[in-house]
Amino acid sequence: MKTDVEIAQEAEMQDIRKIAEKLEISEDELELYGKYKAKVTLDAWQQVKDRPNGKLVLVTAINPTPAGEGKTTTSVGLADAFHKQGKKVAVALREPSLGPCFGLKGGAAGGGYAQVVPMEDINLHFTGDFHAITTAHNLLAAVLDNHIQQGNALDIDVRRVVWKRVLDLNDRALRHVVIGMGGKAHGVPRETGFDITVASEMMAILCLASGLEDMKKRLGEIVVAYTRDGRAVRAKELNVTGALTLLFKDAIKPNLVQTLEGTPAFIHGGPFANIAHGCNSVMATKFALKFADYVVTEAGFGADLGAEKFLDIKCRFAGIHPDAVVIVATVRALKMHGGLDKKELDHVDMAALEKGLANLTKHIENIQKFGLPAVVAINAFPTDTKEELSFVEKKCNELGAEVALSEVWAKGGAGGLKLAKKVEEAFAKKNDFHFLYETEQSIPEKITAIAREIYGADGVDFTAAAKKQLQEIETLGFDKMPVCMAKTQYSLSDDAAKLGRPEGFRITVRELRVAAGAGFIVALTGNILTMPGLPKKPAAENMDIDESGKITGLF
Amino acid sequence: MKTDVEIAQEAEMQDIRKIAEKLEISEDELELYGKYKAKVTLDAWQQVKDRPNGKLVLVTAINPTPAGEGKTTTSVGLADAFHKQGKKVAVALREPSLGPCFGLKGGAAGGGYAQVVPMEDINLHFTGDFHAITTAHNLLAAVLDNHIQQGNALDIDVRRVVWKRVLDLNDRALRHVVIGMGGKAHGVPRETGFDITVASEMMAILCLASGLEDMKKRLGEIVVAYTRDGRAVRAKELNVTGALTLLFKDAIKPNLVQTLEGTPAFIHGGPFANIAHGCNSVMATKFALKFADYVVTEAGFGADLGAEKFLDIKCRFAGIHPDAVVIVATVRALKMHGGLDKKELDHVDMAALEKGLANLTKHIENIQKFGLPAVVAINAFPTDTKEELSFVEKKCNELGAEVALSEVWAKGGAGGLKLAKKVEEAFAKKNDFHFLYETEQSIPEKITAIAREIYGADGVDFTAAAKKQLQEIETLGFDKMPVCMAKTQYSLSDDAAKLGRPEGFRITVRELRVAAGAGFIVALTGNILTMPGLPKKPAAENMDIDESGKITGLF
Repeated sequence: MKTDVEIAQEAEMQDIRKIAEKLEISEDELELYGKYKAKVTLDAWQQVKDRPNGKLVLVTAINPTPAGEGKTTTSVGLADAFHKQGKKVAVALREPSLGPCFGLKGGAAGGGYAQVVPMEDINLHFTGDFHAITTAHNLLAAVLDNHIQQGNALDIDVRRVVWKRVLDLNDRALRHVVIGMGGKAHGVPRETGFDITVASEMMAILCLASGLEDMKKRLGEIVVAYTRDGRAVRAKELNVTGALTLLFKDAIKPNLVQTLEGTPAFIHGGPFANIAHGCNSVMATKFALKFADYVVTEAGFGADLGAEKFLDIKCRFAGIHPDAVVIVATVRALKMHGGLDKKELDHVDMAALEKGLANLTKHIENIQKFGLPAVVAINAFPTDTKEELSFVEKKCNELGAEVALSEVWAKGGAGGLKLAKKVEEAFAKKNDFHFLYETEQSIPEKITAIAREIYGADGVDFTAAAKKQLQEIETLGFDKMPVCMAKTQYSLSDDAAKLGRPEGFRITVRELRVAAGAGFIVALTGNILTMPGLPKKPAAENMDIDESGKITGLF
Repeated sequence: MKTDVEIAQEAEMQDIRKIAEKLEISEDELELYGKYKAKVTLDAWQQVKDRPNGKLVLVTAINPTPAGEGKTTTSVGLADAFHKQGKKVAVALREPSLGPCFGLKGGAAGGGYAQVVPMEDINLHFTGDFHAITTAHNLLAAVLDNHIQQGNALDIDVRRVVWKRVLDLNDRALRHVVIGMGGKAHGVPRETGFDITVASEMMAILCLASGLEDMKKRLGEIVVAYTRDGRAVRAKELNVTGALTLLFKDAIKPNLVQTLEGTPAFIHGGPFANIAHGCNSVMATKFALKFADYVVTEAGFGADLGAEKFLDIKCRFAGIHPDAVVIVATVRALKMHGGLDKKELDHVDMAALEKGLANLTKHIENIQKFGLPAVVAINAFPTDTKEELSFVEKKCNELGAEVALSEVWAKGGAGGLKLAKKVEEAFAKKNDFHFLYETEQSIPEKITAIAREIYGADGVDFTAAAKKQLQEIETLGFDKMPVCMAKTQYSLSDDAAKLGRPEGFRITVRELRVAAGAGFIVALTGNILTMPGLPKKPAAENMDIDESGKITGLF
């Protein structure tokens, strides 16, 4: 069986100008990055911004398990299926981070015959967007420490600098550091740390901004520290929002690549789905909606985290909403949710399947709570039996959700035609989209709405520390923003071990963070690591390139 | 008077494919980065590598003073002058670093009517080469700390990890840091620091490598740490040289841009001229020599540092040498070398000029010691008088060096025609190029040769610490490499205050560092800061971009 990178390398890519032509984007509206990548200019946006939007399909999933669910693969394959039917279609996805690429994952661009290419470039530096974020983030940090060093006119409390530094790598030794050592000429000593670039608030800002001016405004609003008398210090007080925005002059433009079948793919931005909202940029989605009649996009992790934030945060800021939502599941993953061990997944176990199916049905109910039509995509495995598939279909149908078997991993777009048909049927269904909460509600009310309605919790508890932060946030007037939940992706609850559809639990909020530039409050319900570590044998050890440029070890 | 950025923004740039055509580089041999930047593929190299080389002109200068000398401006203008005459010419320059851009300088791409464009892109992320270095450098650091965390099978002495981390920013608070704090899960605590990316050994490697295989070999040779029993640990022992090389798959390809007059410009790599060798990549220079009949390139700082290292290190590795060397000086700077204060430079002071001229004549002698013909370019200022210019010319002629007035800042290529003529005449002169020392000599012999012959010192002293390092380096067998001198650029001596042509001084070597991947030994003669700080009011504070994309504050 061929590896993903082998399939990708065998692909005959088309000139990106040909791909752009499919969306009637002219060569003048492109900035080429080699033959197979391009950025679409902001001038192009001016030409199309008043057009009606195409249909938007959000792809989400059950809570992830080690069995895998294949959300990106399904997104790519579904777009390929529309493309195969001659539709004007685009897929909009996140850019992968170098950290996981060199750590555990080795790459992320779909799989099998449903991939985006050139996968080597997408997985490495791509068009430099993440490097722009790393640079801008760290420039702000350097300017802040320089401000303290040069007299600290703003009276910043060095114990309360909340703006850390970032690198787009997994590097646990940088989680907790002391900087400014070595004497007077070398800065003021203080404790701080590094996050991975995808966890930077600037990543969230890039992905929520509507243009350069909005970007500049949001960058200026970032809270970087507090003064000794408790006032929030904004980035704009350091006088470099112009320079920061300048660093994003290219990064803000959506990137265009292609799938293995030549479907246009916008890949732009990639915020963490825990600490941030976990979906590609508003700019990319909006570009796609103007240029294409059908747009397939995805949200990170399961529907409780990714879809909720897509709908309550991204859609709120962007003024858009999906015309249909696809929930990806695999029979194997459902059996894991039902209690089966990873080694036992080849066996038929209807009791485990029924029990695990509750995870999927909860997500269907949740999507319906947002007033949206849901379609279930069963990502096919050779071990799936007819009995299992019929059972899943019957149960989903009872809830009013259509089900389609997706074989895009093995067959590309041809394996997604059934799913595409169901999605088109869903477009015709009633769409009564509404947010789960209003931003004007209090933070506890907003979090409680999410916890009860989406997670199925009995209620929400705040730790003493979180209560104190809540009070401060309310005093400073930051409480009227959407809430970005940071929670384990593995369970509907805040306990990763509770699979299926847990009941009788409460959610504990341990920490609240202000992301005033991104425009949301982060509510942390557990110990969220914002700088991953490398495993004992990093994926980087398998990677190589020879003199002819042939690459191995990315997958 | 227009600012540099205004002149640059008014320029009508040509499509980079048109610029490439001037060197008979086809569109297929280009990877476009927007309309005005491209990388030249390694396949193109295969087509031309057996061609004879064009003529190579090295542009260097007197020791820099606050009066400025204009080396890049002269390089660009000289190339423009050849271009104006219909020659097939290219200029090869370094990429600027973001650190100084946001710190003091605000940009670096020539000046006046002798600039390379698009200057905004060149000064910001350009084609991402420096970001690739930052990423690869820090990946190696992360893998090293992960190795220690995961059991330290190599028995690395955590007190002797010599591989630091880097950022392409000025950030003094990162010079001395303690990492790995926070407990067992977060790494092993140790002292380390961050350098600016241009000081990374990987920058030197990128600039000296002859291709991907050579790059991989050099990356593997980097000494990252010492074991507890004193053995040097190489990067290759951490098993990620393949992944590191992969990160350079695009960065290794030379970048092509243009001057304001449409002369092809290769801009690639930018190692520090103190801690490293300070000139653009070997790849870019070699590409240029194959594609063009005339190539103008420059070396960092004054001729004592930049030109010496260009000749003894870069030329040695690349198997090339200049056909003529241009030494840039200004009458004002010579007067400063003669003792005048910066405020007094408008006045004619023949005594100061004569005294300061000794700095220039020493550099002429030095270039002649390498067996090369020298041409002096006087970068014209409105305050220069005929008397002053004639005096400089007479003195230089006595040494056998031709002199030309260069007016490229005000007039572009037209202002460089006289210089171009003198350079062509120099091509016809005797060229007896030879290195100053042989790598087989001992380290003290090599350093002494440079100190006596080039700096005019009476001899070299090693501190006790340097003597100890010398012994270790000899024991480990690293001593048969060229020496990369790290010395103040402001004086021929190692004391920045000694202007003109100091005599009766000795050079003190305080530290020796192994750069086994780059292939040289760094000899530090003072306190060289490898991470600059920001000034009280960073240049970043003046920068801005508006919604239409118009940029201000870069210059």
